[in-house]
Amino acid sequence: MDKTKKTIIVFSGDLDKAMAAFIIANGAAAMGDDVTMFFTFWGLNILRKREKISAKKSFLQGMFGWMMPRGAGRLGLSRMNFGGMGATMMKMVMKQQNVSSIEELIATAKEQGIKMVACTMSMDVMGFKPEEMIDGLEYAGVATYLGEADEANVNLFI
Amino acid sequence: MDKTKKTIIVFSGDLDKAMAAFIIANGAAAMGDDVTMFFTFWGLNILRKREKISAKKSFLQGMFGWMMPRGAGRLGLSRMNFGGMGATMMKMVMKQQNVSSIEELIATAKEQGIKMVACTMSMDVMGFKPEEMIDGLEYAGVATYLGEADEANVNLFI
Amino acid sequence: MDKTKKTIIVFSGDLDKAMAAFIIANGAAAMGDDVTMFFTFWGLNILRKREKISAKKSFLQGMFGWMMPRGAGRLGLSRMNFGGMGATMMKMVMKQQNVSSIEELIATAKEQGIKMVACTMSMDVMGFKPEEMIDGLEYAGVATYLGEADEANVNLFI
Repeated sequence: MDKTKKTIIVFSGDLDKAMAAFIIANGAAAMGDDVTMFFTFWGLNILRKREKISAKKSFLQGMFGWMMPRGAGRLGLSRMNFGGMGATMMKMVMKQQNVSSIEELIATAKEQGIKMVACTMSMDVMGFKPEEMIDGLEYAGVATYLGEADEANVNLFI
Repeated sequence: MDKTKKTIIVFSGDLDKAMAAFIIANGAAAMGDDVTMFFTFWGLNILRKREKISAKKSFLQGMFGWMMPRGAGRLGLSRMNFGGMGATMMKMVMKQQNVSSIEELIATAKEQGIKMVACTMSMDVMGFKPEEMIDGLEYAGVATYLGEADEANVNLFI
Repeated sequence: MDKTKKTIIVFSGDLDKAMAAFIIANGAAAMGDDVTMFFTFWGLNILRKREKISAKKSFLQGMFGWMMPRGAGRLGLSRMNFGGMGATMMKMVMKQQNVSSIEELIATAKEQGIKMVACTMSMDVMGFKPEEMIDGLEYAGVATYLGEADEANVNLFI
């Protein structure tokens, strides 16, 4: 076990939980830790590109892709979202308080060398293709996650 | 601490989170780890038998039992469920992609000797009786969980 | 790493998840562990005083404060809440089963010396002031959490 390694599974695609994940990850990286974030299920939405990318999909995968938010800028809150109004309010308050936006948190995570891994099995289920995702990701499955978690001293599921 | 031991608290009764829990658990067991899953609150629904079992309950416990899904085959998604349509779509896509169903994941967990523990306090609150639950479970409380977690190197709450 | 130290991030403000967090925390403390609970985002609602406290806030912060539950007694369930009826039913069943209420669990946590930390960044975003929160809390940020987690052998995100 290495005291300077952390892993976070980002299962949720809610703005508030994504923020929490990146704040913890960036905090740990700033303290010199080696951090791996493993994005799965709804968490993959955080890493989608904003623009629509055409890719070969089954009908159902196309439906999923169409119904789910494209990228960090479009996420909702896990509660009190009210069709997006809650998320907008939250972003306004965060700006007032000089809290980094989710886009800034993701950029900082990249700059700090945080390893961001997209779960390949979830990619297959959701029908997401690598060209639809932001740059700088790695693609791997649960075995890779478990290998990393075995080396870490803090492992969270968000 | 033992690098080959993992625990997962399964608090959620959503299909997507249940799948994530069993995929991680089965992955770890396949790599030779000793895995304990501790089912509590809504997570107990995953382990209910499909058929209705009559058991002595208070009125409120009967209400809970009636309103909550009986077994893994009836779980909904944590989001985009749309009265079960989302869960059905998800299952169809998973079949297309040759991803194991939740029932298969549970069967694999049993075959691999994963210890599945139902939280006795939650059983009492929900009014669930052991005869309503699938076979092969153990029944214990939070002290048992904590004892197992102390021996493990990865402990998740899902 | 210290086998007798645990940390729990309480992100959720749902009654059921708050109960789970305090049951685990109190169980660990009863077994002699040193426990830190770190309350962030919606989890802060658990620690608000029941009565309305006037404090200087921006308009949006005032909205958040007004829309969110004031204290543990007013929390809803993460599912099947039905406008509070589910939470009421759950409380009635817990009483029947002699399970401690959330208020009792919080009191026990204090008595056992569990360290309860409110996340300062979330306090700023939500616009909560220390005078609106119950007594006996500490106030700190993510670096404090990470320092504690590095010393613990079980770290959960709820």
